[in-house]
Amino acid sequence: MNVTLNGRTAHFRTVTFDSAKNAVMLIEQRLLPHSFKIIGTRNFRETAAAIHDMIVRGAGAIGATAAYGLAQGARAFRGKDLPKFNRHVETVYQTLKAARPTAVDPVNAMNQVRLAMRAGETVEEQQAICLAAAEEFANEDARHCEDIGKHGAKLIRNGMNVLTHCNAGWLAFVDIGSATAPMYAAQADGKKFHVFCDETRPRSQGATLTAWELAQQKISHQIIADNAAGHLMQRGKIDLVIVGSDRTLGRTGEVANKIGTYTKAVLAKRHGIPFYVAIPLSTIDWNLKSGFDIPIEERNENEVLGAWGLLQNPTPKNQKSKSPRTSNSAVCAPHSALKYVRVANLTSGALNPGFDVTPADLITGIITPLGIFKPQKLWSQRKVLGWSDCGLTG
Amino acid sequence: MNVTLNGRTAHFRTVTFDSAKNAVMLIEQRLLPHSFKIIGTRNFRETAAAIHDMIVRGAGAIGATAAYGLAQGARAFRGKDLPKFNRHVETVYQTLKAARPTAVDPVNAMNQVRLAMRAGETVEEQQAICLAAAEEFANEDARHCEDIGKHGAKLIRNGMNVLTHCNAGWLAFVDIGSATAPMYAAQADGKKFHVFCDETRPRSQGATLTAWELAQQKISHQIIADNAAGHLMQRGKIDLVIVGSDRTLGRTGEVANKIGTYTKAVLAKRHGIPFYVAIPLSTIDWNLKSGFDIPIEERNENEVLGAWGLLQNPTPKNQKSKSPRTSNSAVCAPHSALKYVRVANLTSGALNPGFDVTPADLITGIITPLGIFKPQKLWSQRKVLGWSDCGLTG
Repeated sequence: MNVTLNGRTAHFRTVTFDSAKNAVMLIEQRLLPHSFKIIGTRNFRETAAAIHDMIVRGAGAIGATAAYGLAQGARAFRGKDLPKFNRHVETVYQTLKAARPTAVDPVNAMNQVRLAMRAGETVEEQQAICLAAAEEFANEDARHCEDIGKHGAKLIRNGMNVLTHCNAGWLAFVDIGSATAPMYAAQADGKKFHVFCDETRPRSQGATLTAWELAQQKISHQIIADNAAGHLMQRGKIDLVIVGSDRTLGRTGEVANKIGTYTKAVLAKRHGIPFYVAIPLSTIDWNLKSGFDIPIEERNENEVLGAWGLLQNPTPKNQKSKSPRTSNSAVCAPHSALKYVRVANLTSGALNPGFDVTPADLITGIITPLGIFKPQKLWSQRKVLGWSDCGLTG
Repeated sequence: MNVTLNGRTAHFRTVTFDSAKNAVMLIEQRLLPHSFKIIGTRNFRETAAAIHDMIVRGAGAIGATAAYGLAQGARAFRGKDLPKFNRHVETVYQTLKAARPTAVDPVNAMNQVRLAMRAGETVEEQQAICLAAAEEFANEDARHCEDIGKHGAKLIRNGMNVLTHCNAGWLAFVDIGSATAPMYAAQADGKKFHVFCDETRPRSQGATLTAWELAQQKISHQIIADNAAGHLMQRGKIDLVIVGSDRTLGRTGEVANKIGTYTKAVLAKRHGIPFYVAIPLSTIDWNLKSGFDIPIEERNENEVLGAWGLLQNPTPKNQKSKSPRTSNSAVCAPHSALKYVRVANLTSGALNPGFDVTPADLITGIITPLGIFKPQKLWSQRKVLGWSDCGLTG
């Protein structure tokens, strides 16, 4: 999507490949929203480290990064010995896979690239194919998000207030995003609407990444505390909820997503507000039989006990300030400026589940690249939705 | 309640009076949880400033502070001219009332003191009475909280996990607290249980004040992100919710409390988890006919856009650390160490409603000093609950 730097606007993807330098080019997402920087990884091990260290995060984005990383590793091989080459590619594959062991997208993406490589008969041919296949994976990811946007944009009407949780934006994919795709498409259709971004504690991806994306795209928005959505719904100030998903169960329609998603779904149900989940097909898990089987990661308690940000002298705590105008200028700050403050009592600990599971009965529809489906209908539509395709069943 | 400083444990009240110095003694709550300090106000204007600047906060605590402040102002009067004295007392009253114009407790507390003062015929007599009356108000507040504890403790059984939101603890009253009172009473009864403290963004009173209180009292507890309670309820890890209230409508049983309370009530209802609100009688508003008539304060957006805390170098963001053992030693840090970090995108604004309203149908019971009532029954029990008493109808 577009990013404006020093008054100049340009289009960026989250992940690209520099074939001359054999480098995977990534937006350094840990610096956002306070600094925008593109970094290049010099080899597949650096690419794996970038995934592991969350320089790049989000299902589609790490899928494309792994696909490019596989190409990067394959292309770095010198020689014509095919069996040796194959062993090398296996090492690259395993290294990239291990970078985020629970994620399914990197594996699916790399499987797709390796399948394409079989058409090559020499090392050279396979090296040429692997990059093309990785590019194809990335383009496909962006196309799928565009298709999610086309279907989802119909849900957004003029004057609506839309709530989203966490970041399922273009930063989580190659481009456009899943939950944000309907917003960007509706904007392109000339619709006016307002987005409430849940702060999304403890990692605050809504306040940082989603708010940054929407500001860059000049979409009217405000951040709210995660506590505020219920009140706003009660007062009729939210018309539609769209979120993403880390894993959607094809058999039950249950959706695992960032902690707090379930709460918003329960609230939306009480208020009769449509609650949609936007996903590419690659997040559908056709195997698991129950949401209770999804392992819920327990994360570092420091995320809950404090916060990372830029040191500032704000308006004093108990005074009211005017809201600054939303602008789309990117603001740069050095990484070293990001500081951690301990908010909580020093002698208390925290419990920090990273995800939760929303049952199908709370979900109005699943927005996919192929259209909007009732969550309970995914299984009956499984052949349409890629159930029999390579990789998607694993 | 008890506070342990440098290994020594002593009992403190939130508000006391030093009659020799004619000073209102307050715990400087803005320094908590990182520093524990008692400050004394030298005159009624400083006392009003302490209320205004939130050195002291919480319904019962500011009520007692205003009562003591009235006595402080009256006792500072020199001379025997009764009409002049009365005009002076009126100035003191108005100054303290203006410190938190929307709060009802300071007014009720000061009315009670002034009513008692009428028994004195001279300035000297009235000066003596006013301090005794203020002490009586403070003692009554503590007694009422103790009674809330007695009734509420029956709800807590061994092995339970109890959720609370924000701080309705002893720091918000003269002693013991409202939502925490059943916990302290259950602990005194020898019961073992665990408390989840909602962080309570944006001001984080759960992570700071409530967690500090529970750590001091050696009650097992963990802080959770506001997003996490729904997940924990879904997984059967929360058995009971107890919160406080800023205003409870006697006619409808609706409860206005810190933003996010309503969300927890909706979640509790979905999971069949009992949801209780603990209140002293002084928070009952017998006049308003609908929760929609309660004005919802919109607060400074900086609260949502960032956080206040102690600068630290924590375990790196993406690593898992062990939970520190909960201890009850108070940790001191200078006030200047509290820093603000801007978490959110710099070009985004926020919407920050401070309170929400929970309807009666989501509330299992209202725990009062006189027993536990169904919220819908408050009105029929209004004569028992002080409806006709001085001040409580205003």
